[in-house]
Amino acid sequence: MTQALKLENLRGRLIRQEETIIFALIERAQFRLNAPIYEPGAIPLPGYDGSFADYFLHETEKVHARVRRYTSPDEHAFSSDLPAPILPPMDIPSPIHPNTINVNDRIRELYRDDILPLICQPGDCGNYGSSAVCDVACLQALSKRIHYGKYIAEAKFQADEPTYRRLIADRDSDGLLAALRDAAVEARLLQRVERKAATYGQDLDAEHPTPAYKVAPKLVADLYARWIIPLTIDVEIIYLLERLGPSA
Amino acid sequence: MTQALKLENLRGRLIRQEETIIFALIERAQFRLNAPIYEPGAIPLPGYDGSFADYFLHETEKVHARVRRYTSPDEHAFSSDLPAPILPPMDIPSPIHPNTINVNDRIRELYRDDILPLICQPGDCGNYGSSAVCDVACLQALSKRIHYGKYIAEAKFQADEPTYRRLIADRDSDGLLAALRDAAVEARLLQRVERKAATYGQDLDAEHPTPAYKVAPKLVADLYARWIIPLTIDVEIIYLLERLGPSA
Repeated sequence: MTQALKLENLRGRLIRQEETIIFALIERAQFRLNAPIYEPGAIPLPGYDGSFADYFLHETEKVHARVRRYTSPDEHAFSSDLPAPILPPMDIPSPIHPNTINVNDRIRELYRDDILPLICQPGDCGNYGSSAVCDVACLQALSKRIHYGKYIAEAKFQADEPTYRRLIADRDSDGLLAALRDAAVEARLLQRVERKAATYGQDLDAEHPTPAYKVAPKLVADLYARWIIPLTIDVEIIYLLERLGPSA
Repeated sequence: MTQALKLENLRGRLIRQEETIIFALIERAQFRLNAPIYEPGAIPLPGYDGSFADYFLHETEKVHARVRRYTSPDEHAFSSDLPAPILPPMDIPSPIHPNTINVNDRIRELYRDDILPLICQPGDCGNYGSSAVCDVACLQALSKRIHYGKYIAEAKFQADEPTYRRLIADRDSDGLLAALRDAAVEARLLQRVERKAATYGQDLDAEHPTPAYKVAPKLVADLYARWIIPLTIDVEIIYLLERLGPSA
């Protein structure tokens, strides 16, 4: 097994990504919901039918695509029509099986419909551009974390190939779910992200005390429990069910 | 005086920007220095002579310019050749005097030459794109904070117009500096950012303890003392020296 797939290294990276996700959510939460940026047509954009937030995400992804962000196996675009990279491809073998799994449509939907109304004050503060910039950071951080399920799944597959080959051959999704989940790891994760959110979201300014956290710590743990962990495991299962297919 | 210029509100916004700056620095510090992205030509880009980091910043600013980021009086671009906004101008009167002050060249230089080598481990980890994304966040956060000096200066001007009119008429930079600086506020600021950096940069993962902070707290206080505060005051002085000029 390559160093890139050692489960301990992968866990370390997922743990570091918790900071990225929590920082991004705290940054977004300083602005109100600003619902018009998610409504197609609410902010008229020449030659574009969608919402302002979708326009901004798409334009940002075009820039990132040109510098080959999405040729990396741990990066996934939300847009489908992106320009080709202007840089030559990287010559690094991917540690995971070739695949086209991308659950970003689900991530975008749950972020806008479920997560944003929980972390933002309702209403409109007019900071549309700033909110859209923060949204891109949140979506990219969530997408990266959830699609890391591919790496986790590959590492677990390699660590116990006979078991996983049997479960995959049987198309046994429930068996895969049982093999992949680790209740003790998940419990520690939920405690840890709540502690992180409490620490990073507290008010440290004695001159302007505010009683509330910037994002409620329990809420961050809930986001992981309700959406981030289940979606990651979905990616793991989809990846494994495709794992024995052709390698190119 | 408008609500936007109440000194207490401005201070509150500067204090909130400390989080944005510290989060951005912590995010950048997870990657190594990656010097090639700052060297023109080290990463060949078709039709572009500059460095990868400058290319990426410029392309990102083009996207932000099209959604009129830089029509806001508290936003300042690093690039000069940017496309026109595709959105109509915002119809909000600016609370500050019209001006074209922009110290972003100095901010970019000190960020790359002085700040990056202090916050990043030396060497190359290959995460060029991720580093460039973090750089944009750091540069934009620093730029916003430092150019907020215009708002601070306008608020102080309006609060004691006779004194400032006299200092400006005398072109008395030293007198302006003395009037603008507040040693007690600065001392509290340095203590506060060090406390914030210690809190946000600490390791909260009991499974993988690391002795070091993600970014040394004392270092963040030093960045403020050596560069962020002095540059903000420079902006304040330049703004005031131009303050009595034509209003359009």
